[in-house]
Amino acid sequence: MGSPHTVPVGAQPLTAASPATPASQEHLYELLAQDLTSLVARGTLRPGDRMPSVRALSDQRGVSVSTVLQAYLLLESRGVVETRPQSGHYVRATRAQLAPEPRPPRGSSQAARPTVSDLVARVYGAGRDPSMVLLGAGYMSPSLLPTERLNRGLAAVARAAGGAGIAYDPPPGLPALRRQIARRAADWGVGITADDVVTTFGTMEALHLCLRAVAQSGDTILVESPAYYGVLQLIESLGMRALEIPANPGTGIDLDLLDAALRQHRVKACLLVTNFSNPLGALLPDAAKEELVRMLARRDVPLIEDDIYGDLHFEGARPRPARAFDPSGNVMLCTSFSKTLAPGYRVGYVIPGRYREVVERLKFAQTVGTATLPQMAIADFLENGGYERHLRRLRRNIADQVARVSEAICAEFPPGTRISRPRGGFFLWVEMPPGKSSLELFARALERKISVAPGPIFSAKGRFGTCVRISCGFPWSDTIARAIRTLGRIAHEL
Amino acid sequence: MGSPHTVPVGAQPLTAASPATPASQEHLYELLAQDLTSLVARGTLRPGDRMPSVRALSDQRGVSVSTVLQAYLLLESRGVVETRPQSGHYVRATRAQLAPEPRPPRGSSQAARPTVSDLVARVYGAGRDPSMVLLGAGYMSPSLLPTERLNRGLAAVARAAGGAGIAYDPPPGLPALRRQIARRAADWGVGITADDVVTTFGTMEALHLCLRAVAQSGDTILVESPAYYGVLQLIESLGMRALEIPANPGTGIDLDLLDAALRQHRVKACLLVTNFSNPLGALLPDAAKEELVRMLARRDVPLIEDDIYGDLHFEGARPRPARAFDPSGNVMLCTSFSKTLAPGYRVGYVIPGRYREVVERLKFAQTVGTATLPQMAIADFLENGGYERHLRRLRRNIADQVARVSEAICAEFPPGTRISRPRGGFFLWVEMPPGKSSLELFARALERKISVAPGPIFSAKGRFGTCVRISCGFPWSDTIARAIRTLGRIAHEL
Repeated sequence: MGSPHTVPVGAQPLTAASPATPASQEHLYELLAQDLTSLVARGTLRPGDRMPSVRALSDQRGVSVSTVLQAYLLLESRGVVETRPQSGHYVRATRAQLAPEPRPPRGSSQAARPTVSDLVARVYGAGRDPSMVLLGAGYMSPSLLPTERLNRGLAAVARAAGGAGIAYDPPPGLPALRRQIARRAADWGVGITADDVVTTFGTMEALHLCLRAVAQSGDTILVESPAYYGVLQLIESLGMRALEIPANPGTGIDLDLLDAALRQHRVKACLLVTNFSNPLGALLPDAAKEELVRMLARRDVPLIEDDIYGDLHFEGARPRPARAFDPSGNVMLCTSFSKTLAPGYRVGYVIPGRYREVVERLKFAQTVGTATLPQMAIADFLENGGYERHLRRLRRNIADQVARVSEAICAEFPPGTRISRPRGGFFLWVEMPPGKSSLELFARALERKISVAPGPIFSAKGRFGTCVRISCGFPWSDTIARAIRTLGRIAHEL
Repeated sequence: MGSPHTVPVGAQPLTAASPATPASQEHLYELLAQDLTSLVARGTLRPGDRMPSVRALSDQRGVSVSTVLQAYLLLESRGVVETRPQSGHYVRATRAQLAPEPRPPRGSSQAARPTVSDLVARVYGAGRDPSMVLLGAGYMSPSLLPTERLNRGLAAVARAAGGAGIAYDPPPGLPALRRQIARRAADWGVGITADDVVTTFGTMEALHLCLRAVAQSGDTILVESPAYYGVLQLIESLGMRALEIPANPGTGIDLDLLDAALRQHRVKACLLVTNFSNPLGALLPDAAKEELVRMLARRDVPLIEDDIYGDLHFEGARPRPARAFDPSGNVMLCTSFSKTLAPGYRVGYVIPGRYREVVERLKFAQTVGTATLPQMAIADFLENGGYERHLRRLRRNIADQVARVSEAICAEFPPGTRISRPRGGFFLWVEMPPGKSSLELFARALERKISVAPGPIFSAKGRFGTCVRISCGFPWSDTIARAIRTLGRIAHEL
């Protein structure tokens, strides 16, 4: 993996992307043309697609209308687009333009990168087809979750709640739920009270609140690489930049590189999954967590800790979050019940440390409060529903699923394929031999009604072109066995 | 036919008194009621005067006795007349209808970064004290909402939903709910399909998504003044600037000033409550909506329309949103069921016009999806729960509450106090005489366990120092009467 570099996740003004480059008009339209060509090459824009209008592109990239017109003229002369009178510019239907481009030089940040959102939308779109085998899904099969008990519990609290059930529950959220959360956190070495918790609509809202509490548009956020695409999208959508620090599938983010990056860049916050990261499945050892917390506290860089998979360890005790090693309130711990209980209830929370007040206010401004009855139902389940017993069974199930899927991948994929060995969570990270494109694998698998998550969505820089994330959130079955056989066959053909 | 006098106000829809009544007949009693109201407003009939007898009026106007009775029933429910047993109808001491309305602020402002959060936090903190009389609250009493039916409905869908109940529901949201929304929108002249709707966690998330879809940190957002503090907080939290354009309590934002502001400033979006604004209660006339839409489309400035109070009109047909006059997709219509059904369910939506795709993606990045079961429960209620019937009753109740509270304010507050005369919603905007500080009123009222919403939280520039918003979301009671008396006393002392 290359050295860390700040890359703009979203479409940034071209001029801002390369401060060293003289801002001559020619240079700008050439850069814009390259950028658009790479969108076509990656399949973000496909043959027959209408290109963005001149005005839209001018606004979006912060360049003049004449720069955009010149870029389109160039693309037309290169056969990338064609102009239709009274209608605009369209991607030409030529195979050549779709062939992958050579990889850009490492660390190049000259031009704005295509965003991950388009690709993610395609991956997600696939998930809506009920006939699809969902090896790309980021969630657990409802058959592994206490579906009936939860829904019955929600029905019971709804019947009993009266006016409180329909009333707003303003931040910090339902006291009964926050008490249960504080009780559980104590088991992970996080000594807090219910007052330290703010409930949210899942982990994503918690991360969003934390990012907005400590950083602004244009700020640099340090993330692990590969990183969960949802986090990259979030950073992108907030106009922030992701600084990707290599992580390895065993012990997670490289602390030496992280330290170097902190010296070199003006980092506003660090956002990491410390336990069983997505997609790597990496587990940061306790000593590394302690060191990480110290390192960040010294530089006053807040850690936004995403611990959504912490409850899904295959063996031993539940790993502690970095928050357990933080005496200073510099760590904002985010998690939810979406992976272990009910994603559709949208109940999560943040323990925001010394940023509690600002997080609470942002929560109010964003969504007023978390939905009342789902909070009541989760609180009730945590108190009376046998959450620990459920977790024990769930952990056994997913450990088994991960083992079987990884077996099958090893058997079916081409020699030279690498595969992660997670000790928790339900993702496998598969690196195919050089030259095998995971985007191609994704596209061909879709035709066979199999969804996977291609590597490039896990990087703001489009890295991981040979990697793919395979989910093991569904019970092993013949269908899954067949799907992996099919994937293996495609991987051979690539 | 039973005597309408024995029908308690609010127990039955007026039309239900004579189900066979043709539409023209309804029109007649409504017209008659308006006519009589204007006689009162002009002072032809004065407080304490006996109204013409039913028979006399019937003869005089050439309408049936039952039309007159219905007109009187309506006037009674609006607080214009009162019935004295064995004696007839008398003009109520309706000072409210005669008091002058508050004045709009002078001139438009420079764009400002709102900083209302601290004050809002204090106002909201007050709301948590259960012994507080909540005249500052922005929500309806659960006693006015179909609490039991909704909670029972949620219980029923939770029991029946199985795995779908706990599963993520990714954007654009639950199809069954989106279909109901599209069906209702048609009644307001908004011709859409379910595909045009994205569900959200209430109106606030919808507004947040729209702002983020079309503007960035540093951009200027045009708002009405006074504006809902939640919107100012949202703009503040996104690092945007609010450009406040004066609105008047009758017809809303001043379009000439808006037009001038559009010429003068680089406005990125316009965010308005078009029907029964908060706090003013202003209703933009249809012609003004049409003009507004045209004005903004011409300059390519999107309109983010907040229509959360549109269902709460006191008379006539539901007012149309500006979206009904927009052929271009430039209006993003946001609303929810938080004011009319269940705030705590957190179910709202946006009809984002041509910004649908970006809104959908932002929604995914922000909160993954809206909670599944609350969406199912609301969809079910819209289909089978008698929403229209509920709305008719709710509207009568709040019209009555608004009339009574405004009466009481006129009686208790110092001479020279101005008060809005909303035709929908449940807020009153009260302007005390010059020199009376609403922040001081707020502070002293808090000591007496009464919460109000002081004027300055409705402006990014701290305007409206003599104004206060009084909520009428709770049924009239001795407690509220006493609280207003106390407020009046404080206002005298200031």
